[in-house]
Amino acid sequence: MSERYFEDFKVGDRFTSANLSMTEEDIVAFARQWDPQPFHVDPEFARSWIYGGLIASGLHTMAATLRLWLDQGVFRACSLGSPGLGKVRFLRPVRPEDSIHVVTEFIELRPSSTRGDRGIGRIRQVTRNQRDEPVLEQETTVFLKRRTPV
Amino acid sequence: MSERYFEDFKVGDRFTSANLSMTEEDIVAFARQWDPQPFHVDPEFARSWIYGGLIASGLHTMAATLRLWLDQGVFRACSLGSPGLGKVRFLRPVRPEDSIHVVTEFIELRPSSTRGDRGIGRIRQVTRNQRDEPVLEQETTVFLKRRTPV
Repeated sequence: MSERYFEDFKVGDRFTSANLSMTEEDIVAFARQWDPQPFHVDPEFARSWIYGGLIASGLHTMAATLRLWLDQGVFRACSLGSPGLGKVRFLRPVRPEDSIHVVTEFIELRPSSTRGDRGIGRIRQVTRNQRDEPVLEQETTVFLKRRTPV
Repeated sequence: MSERYFEDFKVGDRFTSANLSMTEEDIVAFARQWDPQPFHVDPEFARSWIYGGLIASGLHTMAATLRLWLDQGVFRACSLGSPGLGKVRFLRPVRPEDSIHVVTEFIELRPSSTRGDRGIGRIRQVTRNQRDEPVLEQETTVFLKRRTPV
Protein backbone atom coordinates (compact mmCIF):
# COMPACT_ATOMS: atom_id res chain seq x y z
CA MET A 1 0.00 0.00 0.00
CA SER A 2 1.32 3.44 -0.85
CA GLU A 3 1.66 5.86 2.07
CA ARG A 4 -1.01 8.53 2.32
CA TYR A 5 -0.64 12.15 3.36
CA PHE A 6 -3.04 15.07 3.90
CA GLU A 7 -3.06 15.90 0.19
CA ASP A 8 -4.26 12.40 -0.68
CA PHE A 9 -7.61 12.56 1.15
CA LYS A 10 -10.90 14.11 0.12
CA VAL A 11 -14.21 14.55 1.91
CA GLY A 12 -16.32 11.45 1.37
CA ASP A 13 -13.39 9.01 1.31
CA ARG A 14 -14.45 5.83 3.10
CA PHE A 15 -12.52 2.93 4.53
CA THR A 16 -13.95 -0.32 5.93
CA SER A 17 -11.97 -2.28 8.52
CA ALA A 18 -11.54 -5.98 9.20
CA ASN A 19 -13.68 -7.65 11.88
CA LEU A 20 -12.85 -8.12 15.55
CA SER A 21 -14.63 -10.60 17.80
CA MET A 22 -15.29 -9.37 21.34
CA THR A 23 -15.16 -12.38 23.65
CA GLU A 24 -16.55 -12.47 27.19
CA GLU A 25 -12.97 -12.81 28.40
CA ASP A 26 -11.90 -9.67 26.51
CA ILE A 27 -14.92 -7.71 27.75
CA VAL A 28 -14.34 -8.64 31.39
CA ALA A 29 -10.56 -8.09 31.20
CA PHE A 30 -10.91 -4.58 29.75
CA ALA A 31 -13.63 -3.59 32.19
CA ARG A 32 -11.81 -4.95 35.25
CA GLN A 33 -8.98 -2.59 34.45
CA TRP A 34 -10.83 0.55 33.34
CA ASP A 35 -14.60 0.33 33.85
CA PRO A 36 -15.32 -2.15 36.64
CA GLN A 37 -19.08 -1.66 36.80
CA PRO A 38 -20.99 -4.88 37.54
CA PHE A 39 -22.78 -4.99 34.16
CA HIS A 40 -19.34 -5.07 32.47
CA VAL A 41 -17.50 -7.52 34.76
CA ASP A 42 -20.04 -9.85 36.39
CA PRO A 43 -21.89 -12.11 33.91
CA GLU A 44 -24.20 -13.50 36.56
CA PHE A 45 -25.25 -10.09 37.87
CA ALA A 46 -25.64 -8.86 34.31
CA ARG A 47 -28.01 -11.68 33.32
CA SER A 48 -30.69 -10.49 35.70
CA TRP A 49 -30.11 -6.78 35.11
CA ILE A 50 -31.54 -4.22 32.68
CA TYR A 51 -29.32 -5.11 29.73
CA GLY A 52 -30.14 -8.84 30.02
CA GLY A 53 -26.51 -9.94 29.98
CA LEU A 54 -22.93 -8.77 30.04
CA ILE A 55 -22.16 -5.76 27.83
CA ALA A 56 -18.83 -4.29 26.82
CA SER A 57 -17.67 -0.99 28.25
CA GLY A 58 -18.29 1.77 25.72
CA LEU A 59 -14.65 2.69 26.12
CA HIS A 60 -13.71 -0.87 25.16
CA THR A 61 -15.70 -0.51 21.93
CA MET A 62 -13.95 2.83 21.32
CA ALA A 63 -10.56 1.19 21.90
CA ALA A 64 -11.38 -1.71 19.57
CA THR A 65 -12.58 0.82 16.97
CA LEU A 66 -9.31 2.72 17.17
CA ARG A 67 -7.28 -0.46 16.82
CA LEU A 68 -9.30 -1.70 13.84
CA TRP A 69 -8.87 1.68 12.16
CA LEU A 70 -5.12 1.92 12.80
CA ASP A 71 -4.62 -1.62 11.54
CA GLN A 72 -5.90 -0.46 8.15
CA GLY A 73 -2.69 1.57 7.84
CA VAL A 74 -4.38 4.56 6.22
CA PHE A 75 -2.82 6.97 8.75
CA ARG A 76 0.51 5.15 9.08
CA ALA A 77 2.63 7.83 7.44
CA CYS A 78 0.62 10.94 8.22
CA SER A 79 -0.86 10.76 11.74
CA LEU A 80 0.28 13.63 13.95
CA GLY A 81 -2.17 12.84 16.74
CA SER A 82 -5.61 14.17 17.62
CA PRO A 83 -6.78 17.22 19.55
CA GLY A 84 -10.07 15.59 20.47
CA LEU A 85 -13.27 13.84 19.55
CA GLY A 86 -16.97 14.38 19.86
CA LYS A 87 -20.49 13.15 19.28
CA VAL A 88 -19.64 9.75 20.73
CA ARG A 89 -22.83 7.72 20.88
CA PHE A 90 -23.18 4.22 22.28
CA LEU A 91 -26.10 3.08 20.15
CA ARG A 92 -26.47 -0.57 21.08
CA PRO A 93 -24.84 -2.91 23.58
CA VAL A 94 -21.87 -4.96 22.40
CA ARG A 95 -22.20 -8.45 23.84
CA PRO A 96 -19.83 -11.42 24.12
CA GLU A 97 -19.10 -13.01 20.75
CA ASP A 98 -20.28 -9.96 18.83
CA SER A 99 -17.97 -9.25 15.91
CA ILE A 100 -17.48 -5.60 15.08
CA HIS A 101 -16.04 -3.64 12.18
CA VAL A 102 -15.61 0.07 11.54
CA VAL A 103 -16.46 2.30 8.62
CA THR A 104 -14.43 5.51 8.62
CA GLU A 105 -15.42 8.48 6.47
CA PHE A 106 -13.75 11.84 5.98
CA ILE A 107 -16.26 14.61 6.72
CA GLU A 108 -13.94 17.63 6.76
CA LEU A 109 -10.46 18.54 5.53
CA ARG A 110 -8.73 21.90 5.74
CA PRO A 111 -5.19 23.27 5.78
CA SER A 112 -3.82 24.33 9.14
CA SER A 113 -3.83 28.11 9.37
CA THR A 114 -0.70 28.15 11.53
CA ARG A 115 1.37 25.09 10.61
CA GLY A 116 2.59 24.49 7.06
CA ASP A 117 3.53 20.89 7.77
CA ARG A 118 -0.01 19.66 8.25
CA GLY A 119 -3.71 19.75 7.56
CA ILE A 120 -6.66 19.12 9.83
CA GLY A 121 -9.19 16.41 9.13
CA ARG A 122 -12.37 15.22 10.75
CA ILE A 123 -13.43 11.61 10.43
CA ARG A 124 -16.77 10.08 11.31
CA GLN A 125 -16.63 6.46 12.38
CA VAL A 126 -19.52 4.05 12.65
CA THR A 127 -18.80 0.74 14.32
CA ARG A 128 -21.21 -2.07 13.39
CA ASN A 129 -21.85 -5.57 14.68
CA GLN A 130 -22.22 -8.82 12.71
CA ARG A 131 -25.86 -7.91 11.93
CA ASP A 132 -24.62 -4.61 10.49
CA GLU A 133 -26.37 -2.72 13.30
CA PRO A 134 -24.51 0.42 14.43
CA VAL A 135 -23.16 0.09 17.98
CA LEU A 136 -20.97 3.20 18.15
CA GLU A 137 -20.71 6.49 16.29
CA GLN A 138 -18.04 9.10 16.86
CA GLU A 139 -16.23 11.98 15.21
CA THR A 140 -12.51 12.51 15.66
CA THR A 141 -10.37 15.48 14.66
CA VAL A 142 -6.95 14.50 13.35
CA PHE A 143 -3.73 16.32 12.47
CA LEU A 144 -2.38 14.97 9.18
CA LYS A 145 1.13 15.48 7.85
CA ARG A 146 1.48 16.97 4.39
CA ARG A 147 3.62 15.19 1.84
CA THR A 148 4.91 18.63 0.84
CA PRO A 149 4.91 21.40 3.49
CA VAL A 150 3.55 24.76 2.30
CA MET B 1 -20.20 6.34 52.31
CA SER B 2 -23.93 6.48 51.81
CA GLU B 3 -25.18 5.34 48.41
CA ARG B 4 -26.26 8.12 46.06
CA TYR B 5 -29.14 8.15 43.60
CA PHE B 6 -30.44 10.60 40.98
CA GLU B 7 -32.35 12.57 43.60
CA ASP B 8 -29.16 13.19 45.58
CA PHE B 9 -27.32 15.20 42.91
CA LYS B 10 -27.61 18.84 41.92
CA VAL B 11 -26.02 20.90 39.17
CA GLY B 12 -22.67 22.22 40.39
CA ASP B 13 -21.85 19.20 42.57
CA ARG B 14 -18.11 18.52 42.30
CA PHE B 15 -15.98 15.52 43.14
CA THR B 16 -12.18 15.32 43.09
CA SER B 17 -10.49 11.95 42.58
CA ALA B 18 -7.31 10.41 43.93
CA ASN B 19 -4.11 10.55 41.83
CA LEU B 20 -2.86 7.98 39.34
CA SER B 21 0.71 7.83 38.11
CA MET B 22 1.11 6.99 34.42
CA THR B 23 4.37 5.09 34.01
CA GLU B 24 6.18 4.54 30.71
CA GLU B 25 5.39 0.85 31.07
CA ASP B 26 1.65 1.59 31.46
CA ILE B 27 1.65 4.01 28.52
CA VAL B 28 3.40 1.57 26.19
CA ALA B 29 1.29 -1.42 27.32
CA PHE B 30 -2.02 0.37 26.72
CA ALA B 31 -0.91 1.75 23.37
CA ARG B 32 0.50 -1.57 22.12
CA GLN B 33 -2.95 -3.04 22.59
CA TRP B 34 -5.20 -0.22 21.38
CA ASP B 35 -3.29 2.68 19.83
CA PRO B 36 0.05 1.37 18.49
CA GLN B 37 1.26 4.60 16.90
CA PRO B 38 5.02 5.12 17.19
CA PHE B 39 4.74 8.22 19.41
CA HIS B 40 2.81 6.09 21.97
CA VAL B 41 4.86 2.87 21.87
CA ASP B 42 8.44 3.71 20.82
CA PRO B 43 10.34 5.95 23.31
CA GLU B 44 13.34 6.32 21.03
CA PHE B 45 11.31 7.36 18.00
CA ALA B 46 9.27 9.70 20.20
CA ARG B 47 12.32 11.52 21.56
CA SER B 48 13.22 12.93 18.16
CA TRP B 49 9.63 13.57 17.07
CA ILE B 50 7.25 16.54 17.37
CA TYR B 51 6.12 15.87 20.94
CA GLY B 52 9.72 15.54 22.21
CA GLY B 53 9.11 12.25 23.98
CA LEU B 54 6.66 9.45 24.54
CA ILE B 55 3.05 10.56 25.16
CA ALA B 56 0.07 8.56 26.37
CA SER B 57 -2.73 7.66 24.00
CA GLY B 58 -5.64 10.03 24.55
CA LEU B 59 -7.80 6.95 24.98
CA HIS B 60 -5.50 5.80 27.78
CA THR B 61 -6.03 9.11 29.58
CA MET B 62 -9.78 8.70 29.05
CA ALA B 63 -9.62 5.15 30.47
CA ALA B 64 -7.58 6.30 33.49
CA THR B 65 -10.08 9.14 34.00
CA LEU B 66 -12.99 6.71 34.01
CA ARG B 67 -11.26 4.42 36.49
CA LEU B 68 -10.33 7.28 38.83
CA TRP B 69 -13.94 8.49 38.73
CA LEU B 70 -15.50 5.07 39.32
CA ASP B 71 -13.12 4.42 42.21
CA GLN B 72 -14.67 7.40 43.99
CA GLY B 73 -17.82 5.30 44.34
CA VAL B 74 -20.21 8.18 43.68
CA PHE B 75 -22.07 6.22 40.97
CA ARG B 76 -21.79 2.81 42.66
CA ALA B 77 -25.50 2.42 43.41
CA CYS B 78 -27.04 4.47 40.63
CA SER B 79 -25.11 4.01 37.36
CA LEU B 80 -27.29 2.65 34.58
CA GLY B 81 -24.67 3.21 31.88
CA SER B 82 -24.10 6.00 29.38
CA PRO B 83 -25.55 6.79 25.96
CA GLY B 84 -22.49 8.74 24.92
CA LEU B 85 -20.01 11.49 25.46
CA GLY B 86 -18.83 14.63 23.73
CA LYS B 87 -16.49 17.59 23.63
CA VAL B 88 -13.49 15.38 24.36
CA ARG B 89 -10.39 17.55 24.13
CA PHE B 90 -6.82 16.38 24.57
CA LEU B 91 -5.33 19.61 25.90
CA ARG B 92 -1.76 18.62 26.74
CA PRO B 93 0.36 15.51 26.36
CA VAL B 94 0.45 13.08 29.28
CA ARG B 95 4.04 11.86 29.68
CA PRO B 96 5.68 9.04 31.64
CA GLU B 97 5.60 9.67 35.40
CA ASP B 98 2.87 12.28 35.11
CA SER B 99 0.35 11.89 37.91
CA ILE B 100 -3.22 12.72 37.01
CA HIS B 101 -6.44 13.32 38.90
CA VAL B 102 -9.97 14.13 37.79
CA VAL B 103 -12.48 16.76 38.84
CA THR B 104 -16.04 15.79 37.95
CA GLU B 105 -18.85 18.34 37.96
CA PHE B 106 -22.56 17.92 37.30
CA ILE B 107 -23.61 20.35 34.56
CA GLU B 108 -27.13 19.06 33.85
CA LEU B 109 -29.76 16.92 35.56
CA ARG B 110 -33.24 16.11 34.34
CA PRO B 111 -35.87 13.41 34.82
CA SER B 112 -36.23 10.89 32.02
CA SER B 113 -39.36 11.67 30.03
CA THR B 114 -39.99 7.99 29.27
CA ARG B 115 -38.56 5.96 32.18
CA GLY B 116 -39.74 6.49 35.74
CA ASP B 117 -36.84 4.52 37.20
CA ARG B 118 -34.16 7.01 36.22
CA GLY B 119 -32.92 10.50 35.53
CA ILE B 120 -30.42 11.76 33.02
CA GLY B 121 -27.28 13.61 34.05
CA ARG B 122 -24.44 15.24 32.26
CA ILE B 123 -21.03 15.47 33.90
CA ARG B 124 -18.06 17.52 32.81
CA GLN B 125 -14.70 16.07 33.70
CA VAL B 126 -11.36 17.84 33.70
CA THR B 127 -8.30 15.67 34.15
CA ARG B 128 -5.22 17.49 35.44
CA ASN B 129 -1.56 16.62 35.88
CA GLN B 130 0.72 17.12 38.92
CA ARG B 131 1.18 20.78 37.90
CA ASP B 132 -2.60 21.19 37.92
CA GLU B 133 -2.54 21.75 34.14
CA PRO B 134 -5.61 20.37 32.34
CA VAL B 135 -4.73 17.45 30.06
CA LEU B 136 -8.23 16.23 29.15
CA GLU B 137 -11.73 17.67 29.18
CA GLN B 138 -14.88 15.73 28.34
CA GLU B 139 -18.62 15.65 28.90
CA THR B 140 -20.46 12.40 29.52
CA THR B 141 -24.18 11.76 29.61
CA VAL B 142 -25.22 9.26 32.27
CA PHE B 143 -28.38 7.37 33.17
CA LEU B 144 -28.88 7.48 36.93
CA LYS B 145 -31.21 5.27 38.93
CA ARG B 146 -33.76 6.96 41.14
CA ARG B 147 -33.99 5.96 44.77
CA THR B 148 -37.79 6.13 44.37
CA PRO B 149 -39.26 5.52 40.90
CA VAL B 150 -41.94 7.99 39.82
